[in-house]
Amino acid sequence: MPEKIAVIGSGSWATALVKIFSESGNKVSWLVRNKKQADYIVTNKRNPRYLSQAELDLTFIQPTTQPADALLQANWVIFAVPAAYVQTTVQQLKNEWMQQAQIIVSIKGFVPGTGKIPGQYITDTLHLSNDYIVLSGPCHAEEIALHKYTYVTLSGQDESKLIQLQKNITSPYIKTILNNDAVGVEYVAILKNIIAIANGIADSLQYGDNFKAVLTSNAMREVQQIVNKVAPQQRDFFDSVYFGDLLATAYSDFSRNRTLGKLVGRGIQVRKALQMMEMVTEGYYASKELHSILQSPRLNVPVINSVYRILHAHANPYYEMKLLEQQLQ
Amino acid sequence: MPEKIAVIGSGSWATALVKIFSESGNKVSWLVRNKKQADYIVTNKRNPRYLSQAELDLTFIQPTTQPADALLQANWVIFAVPAAYVQTTVQQLKNEWMQQAQIIVSIKGFVPGTGKIPGQYITDTLHLSNDYIVLSGPCHAEEIALHKYTYVTLSGQDESKLIQLQKNITSPYIKTILNNDAVGVEYVAILKNIIAIANGIADSLQYGDNFKAVLTSNAMREVQQIVNKVAPQQRDFFDSVYFGDLLATAYSDFSRNRTLGKLVGRGIQVRKALQMMEMVTEGYYASKELHSILQSPRLNVPVINSVYRILHAHANPYYEMKLLEQQLQ
Repeated sequence: MPEKIAVIGSGSWATALVKIFSESGNKVSWLVRNKKQADYIVTNKRNPRYLSQAELDLTFIQPTTQPADALLQANWVIFAVPAAYVQTTVQQLKNEWMQQAQIIVSIKGFVPGTGKIPGQYITDTLHLSNDYIVLSGPCHAEEIALHKYTYVTLSGQDESKLIQLQKNITSPYIKTILNNDAVGVEYVAILKNIIAIANGIADSLQYGDNFKAVLTSNAMREVQQIVNKVAPQQRDFFDSVYFGDLLATAYSDFSRNRTLGKLVGRGIQVRKALQMMEMVTEGYYASKELHSILQSPRLNVPVINSVYRILHAHANPYYEMKLLEQQLQ
Repeated sequence: MPEKIAVIGSGSWATALVKIFSESGNKVSWLVRNKKQADYIVTNKRNPRYLSQAELDLTFIQPTTQPADALLQANWVIFAVPAAYVQTTVQQLKNEWMQQAQIIVSIKGFVPGTGKIPGQYITDTLHLSNDYIVLSGPCHAEEIALHKYTYVTLSGQDESKLIQLQKNITSPYIKTILNNDAVGVEYVAILKNIIAIANGIADSLQYGDNFKAVLTSNAMREVQQIVNKVAPQQRDFFDSVYFGDLLATAYSDFSRNRTLGKLVGRGIQVRKALQMMEMVTEGYYASKELHSILQSPRLNVPVINSVYRILHAHANPYYEMKLLEQQLQ
């Protein structure tokens, strides 16, 4: 039986998810921001601003601006808004619209000012079961639009639910794999952006691949330490859901976070650099939130600390990198 | 007291090592291939063909074509020839020229037709102690020429010798770190080239970053499995000597091995593709040697096996990748 799936969010990634679930034959109710956008989608079978190269099959998609319409009767509710909008999104929602549904979270970034990962924040705030599922990459939405072969990982405690969700994804270019570590996966998806910023800073300060390979491998170990501390459980960081995701972002020349690092590394003030970025740069906020989380378990994480000092405490990128030259192993 | 160091090899990497050790104030006797090359170096203070951008300080460097001249009285003998030339190089050498010296190996690749890693082959053939030191990256020689900050790892069983060698490296842009796993480091340096070939094949078959991140993380796990099998000992693959080196090659767009993969992925015959490459492509030979080594411990290494079949058993790259789409996790 086809399922009813609600997707909350209207960016590139939400659009990619709507595409995947609708073309798999599920009914998708899609909660978008405004009526103009909803009308455009119905008329043009595309999202006007994000991932507009992807054609959508409106037979299976119902865009709406009314949260209750989107959520009532949905078996699955997918949160796919940018982390910066999680709070305002959740404020519009009511617990009773989602009591029967399984929550799925596909958001990269801490919820600003809370020190919480999105799944935790959403389920806590809406008083829902915290047995949520995380849907994650490594995936660039643009490649989904092009039907490039992509692995999607579903993470959660309840394997039977993961299997049920897996059955609702039948796009031929998508392979789903299952994992039991929703919290760890959310953390890695956040922390990788800080590594990308560190690499961008090193780029602008003329470090070569030799050093960046060392910087990245050290940073990867820092990520492991942090995740094992905040969410202790057995995990293999070489699984593609962790490592592939880290690789696709942290070592990619093209990520927004790396670009922010490059700007800051060139000596541009952080505030100015953020203004120059057209989209939200998650790593900037992640670095700040993480700093408060890391106050009590004092870990040896020099790369993460260095990025924090550069972005949030006016430290000089040149001297911070000189310091890292001596600290990294 | 300055040490006497012999460097065997006249490619880019050997030149980078001559530069590092000579500018650190050691006397370097440099065994090069022919008199013309030796004369050119003396006259022009550069290697004519490889890494010629690096200026060399001839006060400390003695180029020679006579093995005995180079090796007698050397405290350290560094082998830095391409793997393909290890056998012919060793044939010219005598055990008695090196009995007092510590052997250092800085070669990436199996010794063709032997299934042996270079350190093992050299010490076995010359009846030397097999307690050799491996000197490794992540390092591109070109970045050494530019004085880009670089970590060099010294691996071996005898820590006091590693510390002694470390003291002979004082270039301000080089940091040395120590490691106790010479054999594992040699293996990783070889296997990473096979991953680079796999990524090149995926490039030409139009796979995107989503899939290549999964391909690479799976391949990294295969490398771990193999190394843990052939050289069992405790090691952290996220150490920069393993992981940084893997990263700098396996995921770089610019490696020779990746280029070979791209050519083959485009449907060019392997023999033709090899001819098109101007330099030796280690991964091609590594794939073949590894296949015979892996006959007895049957490991689950689909990426490594796939590259073998494509390069050495006429398998079709397109179908091999389709198979991997289903096998990777």
